[in-house]
Amino acid sequence: MKIAQLQLKVLDSKEANLAQLRREIEAVMAEQPDFVTVGEMFACPYYTPNFPLYAEEDGGPMWRALSAIARDYGVYLSAGSVPELADGKVYNTAYVFDRAGQQIAKHRKVHLFDIDVKGGQSFRESDTLTAGDRHTVFDTEFGRMGLCICFDGRFPELARLMVLDGAQAIFVPAAFNMTTGPAHWEVMHRSRAVDNQCYIVATSPARDVNFSYVAWGHSMIVDPWGKVVTELGADAGAAVTEIDLGSVQQIREQLPLLSARRTDLYELTAK
Amino acid sequence: MKIAQLQLKVLDSKEANLAQLRREIEAVMAEQPDFVTVGEMFACPYYTPNFPLYAEEDGGPMWRALSAIARDYGVYLSAGSVPELADGKVYNTAYVFDRAGQQIAKHRKVHLFDIDVKGGQSFRESDTLTAGDRHTVFDTEFGRMGLCICFDGRFPELARLMVLDGAQAIFVPAAFNMTTGPAHWEVMHRSRAVDNQCYIVATSPARDVNFSYVAWGHSMIVDPWGKVVTELGADAGAAVTEIDLGSVQQIREQLPLLSARRTDLYELTAK
Repeated sequence: MKIAQLQLKVLDSKEANLAQLRREIEAVMAEQPDFVTVGEMFACPYYTPNFPLYAEEDGGPMWRALSAIARDYGVYLSAGSVPELADGKVYNTAYVFDRAGQQIAKHRKVHLFDIDVKGGQSFRESDTLTAGDRHTVFDTEFGRMGLCICFDGRFPELARLMVLDGAQAIFVPAAFNMTTGPAHWEVMHRSRAVDNQCYIVATSPARDVNFSYVAWGHSMIVDPWGKVVTELGADAGAAVTEIDLGSVQQIREQLPLLSARRTDLYELTAK
Repeated sequence: MKIAQLQLKVLDSKEANLAQLRREIEAVMAEQPDFVTVGEMFACPYYTPNFPLYAEEDGGPMWRALSAIARDYGVYLSAGSVPELADGKVYNTAYVFDRAGQQIAKHRKVHLFDIDVKGGQSFRESDTLTAGDRHTVFDTEFGRMGLCICFDGRFPELARLMVLDGAQAIFVPAAFNMTTGPAHWEVMHRSRAVDNQCYIVATSPARDVNFSYVAWGHSMIVDPWGKVVTELGADAGAAVTEIDLGSVQQIREQLPLLSARRTDLYELTAK
């Protein structure tokens, strides 16, 4: 299974972002990726007042354009996240489309990003966003996958629930910043991979130092042993990585963590 | 709060290990530590057939010697772990004594270490050990602390339960090996600290390349932001670290993770 991660600069207009996405997919198609991924809010500059302005409903122009891209190139598309409008509320929503352009997953960010680090980053997604209400897994020809968005990755409970539901790889469109990125981006993704013995596919937008929210970049893939097998830098770029999902089962047998959980002593349940 | 971590070479006889412990405490007393910590099975070479041979009951000679050491030096002693005999069963047990030599915590390892990594480490604690049945927190003059042993640290559920019960620092006597040490020792401790915004105090025996189980060493303290503030190497040694428990609350306010858990969507419970 080959994954093309596109770490794109976020442009102002949705159309320009979609055109850029097509160009960048075309540039990697010679490597025959099965999955294409992009970052959180890849087509909406990450700024709370923008979310309602850019938001569209399911099946709207953005959704149709993403579905068409997946179909046109015959790839699975983890379309980062986009602001979704539903019943007057706005969500940070990650869609996944299959090779035929069918939506096979939809995750609304369940943990909104509200932080205020002294001398560092401040941000309040909850000013304009509403949180989702469930964790998300989806099936592909390669097996079952998980899906969450950025700050969701902070919570070990969520990754665990996805893995207990069968996820072998977790796709994480994300956009850490210049405070949390250097401190926590790598350790968080590596630990989710190690603890759950699964792949983590984390894709960020490129860094834009002229924007109010400066993304850390560093899109990466971590294998189930916790090794960073792919890492981009801060700038726009792409990486195509072949992952071996067979290693998930091998590692789970050699170092039995999931089966060694003391479910007689503690229990994690989804409500 | 000052913590002296003693990364000791494990000797064959219990008496020699206890004499070494006293010598090493005396060597750091000028720095006025409040806590002294040692590694997993610090007085019993880590080899499954040894556990029943070295095991003693609560209140036996080893227990009394450890209590006396805490009292004699007026320190809290996280006495690594020792094999404990109870009702014909053997446990991997971590005791903590207060400055008066009173036992204030006792944790029996709840996740036994059974692994078989191809081309790497194999070990089966369950050949001779029985697992404990609860997670452990304890109170000190500095606040509430958590306690677990080595492989227990692999399971995010356990650290989370300790922190939800009020732990501000988690003491982890441990002995990773030359397979899991370089791969996972640091990322595991850092991620438990970051996710739970608490200190992790992980203490290992020193490396002995002539023994069957070669410990990784690298005793470390990680702060609640995930920074490694102290790290020893592979050899025998000691480190005294002053930690600031006030930073626990500060970081939890600036980057609200624990309070942002979606307990309406998932629930982690102890049974």
